[in-house]
Amino acid sequence: MILIAEKLNGSIPSCAEAIKAKDEDYIKDLAKRQADSGVDFIDCCASVIENELETMEWMINAIQSVTDCPISIDSPDVQVLIDSMPLCNKPGMFNSVSGEGNKIDTAFPVLAKPENSKWHIMALLCDDTGIPKTAEKRIEVFETIMEKAAFYGIAENRIHVDPAVEMLCTTDDGEGAFMILDVMKHIKKASPKVHISGAISNISYNLPVRRLVNQAFAVLAINAGMDSAVLDPLNKDLRGVILAAEAMLGHDDFCAEYVSAYREGIFEK
Amino acid sequence: MILIAEKLNGSIPSCAEAIKAKDEDYIKDLAKRQADSGVDFIDCCASVIENELETMEWMINAIQSVTDCPISIDSPDVQVLIDSMPLCNKPGMFNSVSGEGNKIDTAFPVLAKPENSKWHIMALLCDDTGIPKTAEKRIEVFETIMEKAAFYGIAENRIHVDPAVEMLCTTDDGEGAFMILDVMKHIKKASPKVHISGAISNISYNLPVRRLVNQAFAVLAINAGMDSAVLDPLNKDLRGVILAAEAMLGHDDFCAEYVSAYREGIFEK
Repeated sequence: MILIAEKLNGSIPSCAEAIKAKDEDYIKDLAKRQADSGVDFIDCCASVIENELETMEWMINAIQSVTDCPISIDSPDVQVLIDSMPLCNKPGMFNSVSGEGNKIDTAFPVLAKPENSKWHIMALLCDDTGIPKTAEKRIEVFETIMEKAAFYGIAENRIHVDPAVEMLCTTDDGEGAFMILDVMKHIKKASPKVHISGAISNISYNLPVRRLVNQAFAVLAINAGMDSAVLDPLNKDLRGVILAAEAMLGHDDFCAEYVSAYREGIFEK
Repeated sequence: MILIAEKLNGSIPSCAEAIKAKDEDYIKDLAKRQADSGVDFIDCCASVIENELETMEWMINAIQSVTDCPISIDSPDVQVLIDSMPLCNKPGMFNSVSGEGNKIDTAFPVLAKPENSKWHIMALLCDDTGIPKTAEKRIEVFETIMEKAAFYGIAENRIHVDPAVEMLCTTDDGEGAFMILDVMKHIKKASPKVHISGAISNISYNLPVRRLVNQAFAVLAINAGMDSAVLDPLNKDLRGVILAAEAMLGHDDFCAEYVSAYREGIFEK
């Protein structure tokens, strides 16, 4: 499982306050703790209306002052992402492109350059209509993105697809999370080299005891092919459940990784 | 999900002590707390070598003095189970028959009687060789049991199949829990009216932080068709994860049951 740590995001109120107050210690502390928990990328999302690039630069520098964990630069503005790339000491995650506007045709030529070939790319399955309501429409967006990736010569294994996990509580008619899980299964089958990702905690929005909903969803998503996730890496129970699910799905012989993660304190009693 | 509360079992050391000391308060307290947590059956297993029927009677009476929750009478000796049936105030679970010896031909004629038609039956997929190693062999045992059920006129929806959940930690070669999940999926498809059950916590034997392994397994088992389970109903996180998984799998429109269970205190923050 490729882990993208989610806690440095200006859409989280406490983080927004820290950004506003230019509280570097807040950024450094969370960057360090998330990195120490053994993640693959630290997400960095300013979520500000003005001076986004300057804020990203300040956050990136703070993160890089305490860890060499790769950064997932996160913005709805692909030009901000393109301008943030050179600020990173090493290749990270370009988070994100989607089927909206000319995002792909702006980002992919840059990401296709040989010097950027180690950058991973998060591809969100939405388009100019927003988040499509049906699995079929999301898969159409996926196919368009993959055609563009092929056109620009971007390898499939650089792409992490976020099928746009939405809250469970508004689904009805026996729908549950089937649609999003079906999209994952389809992509896994159609393009086995593509990583399947998503923001796990989106599923539990507006429900009580979100941690349990997130845990159940993580297990079902892994079963459907998810091998990359945006999550709170400091939630030890979630980490343990993910490792247990991976062992059950045959990715961890004799549960060796589960047991060693326990010994390292990734999760606990 | 049909819940069978597992804590009154003489194979659990603290319960064995209580049975030995004839500590009726211990039995009553656990019976009451498990019943109050909203289960469908309270398992009652003496697990003693001598005087098993007398011990069962003592336990059944203690349970029935505090709750009218149906009892799952649990013994490897079907004659003890047959003799325990009239001790119960209402129909419960006959736990269990299996492909071993003449268990079925002893038990099914009794369970087929019209006055016993409301008893549920746990059918464990083992035979005279023990627990078969392959899915194919377990399915053979299942088919033999179902043929006998048809022969004796026992309705499929009375039968709960326990595919014999075993510990995950000894599996290798990418096997994980696939075999047991495959058996569940096969039975769900072949006999949709049969309940798929099992002892969830068996999966985590010998692993650290068993609660997280149990939670991950419960989600995968529900996804594979499990609709009945032997579990610790006082484990609130497990209860919440099960309810969340059921909502995701389309069994709980608008998460109404999940939310109301939370309000009732079945699980908590």
